[in-house]
Amino acid sequence: MAETTTVTVERLQQLSTAALATVGVPDEDAAAVTRVLVEADMMGLATHGVIRLTPYTTRIRMGGVKAKPRVTVDQRAPSLAVVDGDNGLGPVIGTRALKAAMAMAAATGIAYVGCRNSNHFGAMMPYALTACDAGFVMIAATNAGPTMPPWGGAEARIGNNPLCVAAPMPGGPHFILDMAMSVAARGKIRIAERNKTPIPEGWAVDKDGRPTTDPVAAMRGFLVPFGGHKGSGLSLAVDILAGVVTGAGFLTGIASWTEQPKEPQRAGHFFLLIDPARLTGAGAFAESMARFREIIHSTRAADPAAPVLIPGQREQERRRAALESGVAVPADLLAEVEALGR
Amino acid sequence: MAETTTVTVERLQQLSTAALATVGVPDEDAAAVTRVLVEADMMGLATHGVIRLTPYTTRIRMGGVKAKPRVTVDQRAPSLAVVDGDNGLGPVIGTRALKAAMAMAAATGIAYVGCRNSNHFGAMMPYALTACDAGFVMIAATNAGPTMPPWGGAEARIGNNPLCVAAPMPGGPHFILDMAMSVAARGKIRIAERNKTPIPEGWAVDKDGRPTTDPVAAMRGFLVPFGGHKGSGLSLAVDILAGVVTGAGFLTGIASWTEQPKEPQRAGHFFLLIDPARLTGAGAFAESMARFREIIHSTRAADPAAPVLIPGQREQERRRAALESGVAVPADLLAEVEALGR
Repeated sequence: MAETTTVTVERLQQLSTAALATVGVPDEDAAAVTRVLVEADMMGLATHGVIRLTPYTTRIRMGGVKAKPRVTVDQRAPSLAVVDGDNGLGPVIGTRALKAAMAMAAATGIAYVGCRNSNHFGAMMPYALTACDAGFVMIAATNAGPTMPPWGGAEARIGNNPLCVAAPMPGGPHFILDMAMSVAARGKIRIAERNKTPIPEGWAVDKDGRPTTDPVAAMRGFLVPFGGHKGSGLSLAVDILAGVVTGAGFLTGIASWTEQPKEPQRAGHFFLLIDPARLTGAGAFAESMARFREIIHSTRAADPAAPVLIPGQREQERRRAALESGVAVPADLLAEVEALGR
Repeated sequence: MAETTTVTVERLQQLSTAALATVGVPDEDAAAVTRVLVEADMMGLATHGVIRLTPYTTRIRMGGVKAKPRVTVDQRAPSLAVVDGDNGLGPVIGTRALKAAMAMAAATGIAYVGCRNSNHFGAMMPYALTACDAGFVMIAATNAGPTMPPWGGAEARIGNNPLCVAAPMPGGPHFILDMAMSVAARGKIRIAERNKTPIPEGWAVDKDGRPTTDPVAAMRGFLVPFGGHKGSGLSLAVDILAGVVTGAGFLTGIASWTEQPKEPQRAGHFFLLIDPARLTGAGAFAESMARFREIIHSTRAADPAAPVLIPGQREQERRRAALESGVAVPADLLAEVEALGR
């Protein structure tokens, strides 16, 4: 394991906003990006934490993302809006869109806000936490550059397109399912390649679409969606809801975040909020969610040492611990983030 | 393979309505149920076709389902409604809910209609076809009696909770993803049980959580969610959206369709419709969907003999063929349906 340094949440937030300021991101926008990234670190989602500051700021420096976008909210109907992100940082656009969706859903009970001309918008759990704290049920998703073949294909056409479904839980933890569409993360294959160890069957296919356990062949080939045709279909469905419906790019129309750093990514997201108080009443909904939690938590576990959890429970427990005791950050990453802010 | 008889769509519809009439289902309701079941047979979804007439009519005879329910649509806001199914047949309730959702989405651009006090509502593709033909993007799902353990659990707590995402395609086929959460459908295990053939490994575990290929042991045990914790989480998410939010039963609060035939199932469903014409404009949406289809269809196939398809494409092709050439129905099933109508 790499050496880590434990820093307070406030310190990590200061470092993040300082890094974003050096590339000209306005204060309010830097605060939004910082919240999304640092929340991810607090929840233990390190791949989506402040480690993203280097690609975010690099992309701004290379002209692939605008530091000062003119984000517009175009409300098409009382419960429908399209946010044009003007190629700004994704978390700036996502935060604006969620805020608009919450205002609309508070007024009408439901809101769909689609985002176009956006970029990588971070982990979804921080957005879900905001929506749930305000009492909304949320379905949200984003598309991403093509890395996987559709079911039966041998060319990358679909992104890892994470999908989030969240619902407020009285007393916590909120139900927050946040799942990407691949069996395994690409980062895990990269680690196996570095360690020269085989990867499990079913994680990836080679460049001709044949199953492989060789991490080198897998890196030249493709990740595989989870559940075969089901994960593939779900990834396509997210691309329609987040890309086609919003007017964003979709499938091969999305630029690679890593390989095309000077190009607008044209990613799309959506936030769909429902106010459950309008349907069952707030009291009945809270009671049912508490009952839901009780049924899950009281399920006999296959392994008595590993009780059955609510999706997102572990991340929210880590978040609470981080608020009290700080966040452990790899020392080299901390040095990198500190250097960005100078 | 069992001997089959090919019948016209009209003949199958007549047989279905006759069967439903014998248990007192009113004409309009029988037409709705018949449409959902026969469309499933036309699409090759035989597990959700007229094979369901025996359990549907049996349940009415045993008092578990009302033949003449008083279905009410309670509109809570311009884009939100709750349908109380009064324990009628699921397809009657689902058809009423979808109709209400389409009217609301036509007026406001978006609608969420939740259903409570409902029962098994058939396959989702027939509903998706209706929504797509009218130009709506649809997300819909239902919960179901507990048959699977949640991830890490050793007791049945979650249903197979199918989820459908559909989008209209100009010139067809519509994009219709309809997926249950288990690796395999329970209906397929039931067919294997009937045919006394083993099931593939990985479909189910027995009552003690051990993998089995015996359909009888599998029917006494559990289905397994696809994608491990992801399918388990998605099933829970559907249960919240279709059950908790609507005020229906959820998790263990849903009666088993097969084992508690005299009890109201208390199942919940939802239909969420979006009018894409309100977001990107109808022309731009149609162009993007056509481009989406082109990208998928032009993907190099891993097996050149098996081109990459749009989800729901095969089912819609079968449906067209059935309209021309009829539906092949197992001879014993046909005899059973004919007998029901006498």
